[in-house]
Amino acid sequence: MENYQFHAPTKMLFGKGQIQQLPNELKEFGKKVLLVYGGGSIKRNGIYDAIYQLCQEFEIIELSGVEPNPRIETVQKGANLCKEHHIDVILAVGGGSTIDCAKVIAGATFYDGDAWDLVVDKTKITKALPIITILTLAATGSEMNKNAVISRLDTNEKLGTASPLFIPKVSILDPTYLYTLPAIQTAAGTADIMSHVFENYFKKDQTAFVQDKFAEGLLQTCIHYCPIALKEPNNYEARANLMWASSMALNGLTGSGKAGAWTCHAIEHELSAYYDITHGVGLAILTPRWMRYILSDQTVDKFVEYGLNVWHLSPHEKDKYKIAHMAIDKTENFFKECGIPMTLKELNIDEKHITDMAKAAITHGQLDQAYVALNQEDVENILKACL
Amino acid sequence: MENYQFHAPTKMLFGKGQIQQLPNELKEFGKKVLLVYGGGSIKRNGIYDAIYQLCQEFEIIELSGVEPNPRIETVQKGANLCKEHHIDVILAVGGGSTIDCAKVIAGATFYDGDAWDLVVDKTKITKALPIITILTLAATGSEMNKNAVISRLDTNEKLGTASPLFIPKVSILDPTYLYTLPAIQTAAGTADIMSHVFENYFKKDQTAFVQDKFAEGLLQTCIHYCPIALKEPNNYEARANLMWASSMALNGLTGSGKAGAWTCHAIEHELSAYYDITHGVGLAILTPRWMRYILSDQTVDKFVEYGLNVWHLSPHEKDKYKIAHMAIDKTENFFKECGIPMTLKELNIDEKHITDMAKAAITHGQLDQAYVALNQEDVENILKACL
Repeated sequence: MENYQFHAPTKMLFGKGQIQQLPNELKEFGKKVLLVYGGGSIKRNGIYDAIYQLCQEFEIIELSGVEPNPRIETVQKGANLCKEHHIDVILAVGGGSTIDCAKVIAGATFYDGDAWDLVVDKTKITKALPIITILTLAATGSEMNKNAVISRLDTNEKLGTASPLFIPKVSILDPTYLYTLPAIQTAAGTADIMSHVFENYFKKDQTAFVQDKFAEGLLQTCIHYCPIALKEPNNYEARANLMWASSMALNGLTGSGKAGAWTCHAIEHELSAYYDITHGVGLAILTPRWMRYILSDQTVDKFVEYGLNVWHLSPHEKDKYKIAHMAIDKTENFFKECGIPMTLKELNIDEKHITDMAKAAITHGQLDQAYVALNQEDVENILKACL
Repeated sequence: MENYQFHAPTKMLFGKGQIQQLPNELKEFGKKVLLVYGGGSIKRNGIYDAIYQLCQEFEIIELSGVEPNPRIETVQKGANLCKEHHIDVILAVGGGSTIDCAKVIAGATFYDGDAWDLVVDKTKITKALPIITILTLAATGSEMNKNAVISRLDTNEKLGTASPLFIPKVSILDPTYLYTLPAIQTAAGTADIMSHVFENYFKKDQTAFVQDKFAEGLLQTCIHYCPIALKEPNNYEARANLMWASSMALNGLTGSGKAGAWTCHAIEHELSAYYDITHGVGLAILTPRWMRYILSDQTVDKFVEYGLNVWHLSPHEKDKYKIAHMAIDKTENFFKECGIPMTLKELNIDEKHITDMAKAAITHGQLDQAYVALNQEDVENILKACL
């Protein structure tokens, strides 16, 4: 186990009606609030009205229309609003895109240059506004970590940045907010959670037992509850467990002490950058193809561990590769049964940009340091297997 | 799943040599340090010298001799030192006893009355000095939570208190510090970790799936690595996983959303209060007897879950009670094989105080709100089964 720092200081307020605590939490930071959100869903599900009803003593400035893959232009707009109105605290209401956007706004407020600089070079993030989040999608884990991913469409770039200053101070997680999600968002969000866990589980270090047991527990949670949430959207237990899994999957619990680069995320960022697709859908398509591509004598034992502990395959089967392939097939079928389109063709993506995307993934993704090191040709092969 | 707040803000610095970061962390809080520790072990293993070598720019006042069940008199002495020397930050070096003692010192420094008041009534804790810990025992989880347990021998009282102000700011966890532990401390510490998990796992709420999977993972960690650490004291992987498990078992991860009182801890506190025994040993003795006592049609399914997921008993066995009893027997044998004395007789404890202890456990422990509600007679029966 390698040395690490674990620091997940966000105060998590979990459960029905926790929004009642919002005014108390906001006032710790001031009176002027930038409310950041995406489309109109928070108006339809009542959160928007609840915020205004609860926060009458605050001055609220709005930034709406944050995109599913949030754009740098929106970040810059938000930072300008913060400067102009002397904002004290940012309230991000939505999923990972909204929260990621709020994070870079929080940093860009104290930066005089182009906000994109903070995405390209995180050392330029030196100060940030405090952030409170209200989560409406179980997926990215952004509600409890330092990461943000921002897109720049004119150059087909989608890059991650991070700062301890970006960690939300408080996150409100009310599972009932997930009841009205479109089914594909429940499914794609679950694929995103699972991918975070996979990226940490499949690493070179094999001694972080606690972390791997947590990983297996989170994967089992997703596998158990996503189909229930799809069938019964108002099932509180299913929504609660998926929501908590999203925060736990990417707050350091599964990745601490396990160095190395991520693979599917690096490749998916290029798919999203080129085609603006849903992140979780891209990850679901890539994951089983990546798994099959890297399966070898070096990795088969880890896939067996995955198959036995997560899918409860029979330990009596003696052929390791058979267990590994069964586990990978089950992963693919699971995503399919959750209603996720499992080929790039279904997203109208063809071979055209595969070389460019593979090249960009290698440039941005440090894939030479992944669980199994990949070069450009490897990435092209994985993408072709996804067509 | 019930509503909850999860807040574990301690910065955890994990791994070999992390003590190098101590001066940087200390200076965030000031220059005057109260160094709190127990017996001479930190002098034998080099930590004491390392602190003085690294912290030459600080003014260090010492409070040594913290007892294994820390006494209120020691707390009061520490608080007096803090007031007298205008201490900025407390550095607690040791296991849970030392850290617990430091926590109540931190609060008592800002309290004018008797420090025992803060143990009896936690609402009196209104301000506290910041605490940094260096952990030398994997057991209580005090390094990452708000809890403290303090003893008062003249009245045979051992009580828990808690405050968010007590949560350590930084904890340094270097697994190599566990290499020189006496075997019984490794074993008793592991029993303590497992008991924290059991107390949260066996609760009325059965919908907190993520929390229960984390619990099962931590139990498997203890079962896998404690025997290795006993056989090979310098096995880094074993020490590292046990150390991390101690912090994860009682920082909210396994208990969030699962209300209700704890049982074995409430009873063990009375054993320790009357006989000053090692906490983890008392817990190991009580746990299997308590499990057998509460096994019934209402609880058998949870014990089956425990047996299948933690001990990997065969799911083909159809007799639920057979699985449950096997799981409980395995728990008892595990502690025995780790070298823990598994009867009260071996600790020279007889029937004499059983009624008094049972009465006190009922008074302090809210055992009517436990997983299975217990009355005084129940507690007496469990204690008798431990003789």
